[in-house]
Amino acid sequence: MAPIKLYGSPVSTATTRVLVTLYEKEVEFEFVPIDMRAGEHKKDSFLAINPFGQVPAFEDGDLKLFESRAITKYVAHQYADKGTQLKCGDMKTTAMILVWMEAEAHQFDPAASKLAWELAIKPLFGMVTDNAAVEEHEAKLVKVLDVYESRLSQSKYLACDCVTLADLHHLPNIQYLLGTQAKKLFDCRPHVCKWVADITARPSWLKVVEMQKKK
Amino acid sequence: MAPIKLYGSPVSTATTRVLVTLYEKEVEFEFVPIDMRAGEHKKDSFLAINPFGQVPAFEDGDLKLFESRAITKYVAHQYADKGTQLKCGDMKTTAMILVWMEAEAHQFDPAASKLAWELAIKPLFGMVTDNAAVEEHEAKLVKVLDVYESRLSQSKYLACDCVTLADLHHLPNIQYLLGTQAKKLFDCRPHVCKWVADITARPSWLKVVEMQKKK
Ligand SMILES: N[C@@H](CCC(=O)N[C@@H](CS)C(=O)NCC(=O)O)C(=O)O
Ligand SMILES: N[C@@H](CCC(=O)N[C@@H](CS)C(=O)NCC(=O)O)C(=O)O
Repeated sequence: MAPIKLYGSPVSTATTRVLVTLYEKEVEFEFVPIDMRAGEHKKDSFLAINPFGQVPAFEDGDLKLFESRAITKYVAHQYADKGTQLKCGDMKTTAMILVWMEAEAHQFDPAASKLAWELAIKPLFGMVTDNAAVEEHEAKLVKVLDVYESRLSQSKYLACDCVTLADLHHLPNIQYLLGTQAKKLFDCRPHVCKWVADITARPSWLKVVEMQKKK
Repeated sequence: MAPIKLYGSPVSTATTRVLVTLYEKEVEFEFVPIDMRAGEHKKDSFLAINPFGQVPAFEDGDLKLFESRAITKYVAHQYADKGTQLKCGDMKTTAMILVWMEAEAHQFDPAASKLAWELAIKPLFGMVTDNAAVEEHEAKLVKVLDVYESRLSQSKYLACDCVTLADLHHLPNIQYLLGTQAKKLFDCRPHVCKWVADITARPSWLKVVEMQKKK
């Protein structure tokens, strides 16, 4: 019996952020689907793991965790010797991983997740896209991607020349945006475009995409 | 000559998040004030350290970092043997620090920083507070603080019984909110109230408040 359980939904970006990390680290786990339409994430049994009532939630034995980026960091640290290493050697690179993980969380995600919501997720649920919001967040994402283009002309991945959590954390929102008009923002920046092609083709991410198709 | 330089402004929450950490770790550094009204953070010399054009930016020898929470994590890690330890022993606590740092960034900060903007910073600059926004973000903060109240009834600080970055990261927004009507949201929750009194009275934070007064 796998001691690790991930509770969530394959349509949730925060859930797939953890899924891709577990696959990269080749860690055995049980995926427990949460029926969000039925409000399962607001029930007491779920709130006992994540008091904020959001997916994902995570258990490793008696350790209960939440917040996708905390879970991925725990998994990368605790299972350091399994699967993909997800880090390079020295302190300087470690610092760069810290910086670009925060850039994802505080620069990329605010724009990208709102765009994904307007352009990909709202249409899925038959809701109407707010074009003013799209324009606003596209403009923000453009500025962020200009910085990324420059960064990715210096190293193959964001933090260094090997793939790290800083890259993987971007995958959930990128995947949604590639199916929308926002794809052009990635395509027209050669280094960003190559990076996107590289990370979205990783076997770990393809497994996540398969899970999404089965939903 | 101090090899560490912090570029920023004492009115910036992201800057003071790093300042309090440097004081806790008793790390020597030079503070380089950035004149944001003059747009110094958008000049090439600054963009060479933080390409996103925001304060703070940080240098340790030839290492250039940005994003406040990446800088604090680097400082805590690199200068682990100096000043306050900011961690407890085992992996379980390390995981809890990860979780509550992310809770600050993704649950507390989105509500608290917008409230601080409306209630504390806008009035400072003679701008008009948007009452609808205040109501919306107060409602969000209430939900977050309910979770914190429950958590802080179990341990003295958010991650464990000793102070960690997970606590310190909250200080900049809390400080602004204590001078506003939102103070009541902290005051009416006994464990939150005690925690706020504790962390805002730390000598490291009092030094930051002194710097803000001199501005
Ligand atoms: N910062 C959290 C965000 C979690 C989150 O927003 N989850 C969404 C699905 S992607 C959710 O559960 N939404 C339902 C709700 O907030 O009630 C994380 O990274 O884990
Ligand atoms: N996520 C960044 C936020 C930095 C930030 O928003 N800094 C503000 C001051 S608190 C700033 O420089 N604003 C000016 C601008 O964005 O142009 C961090 O934590 O360092």
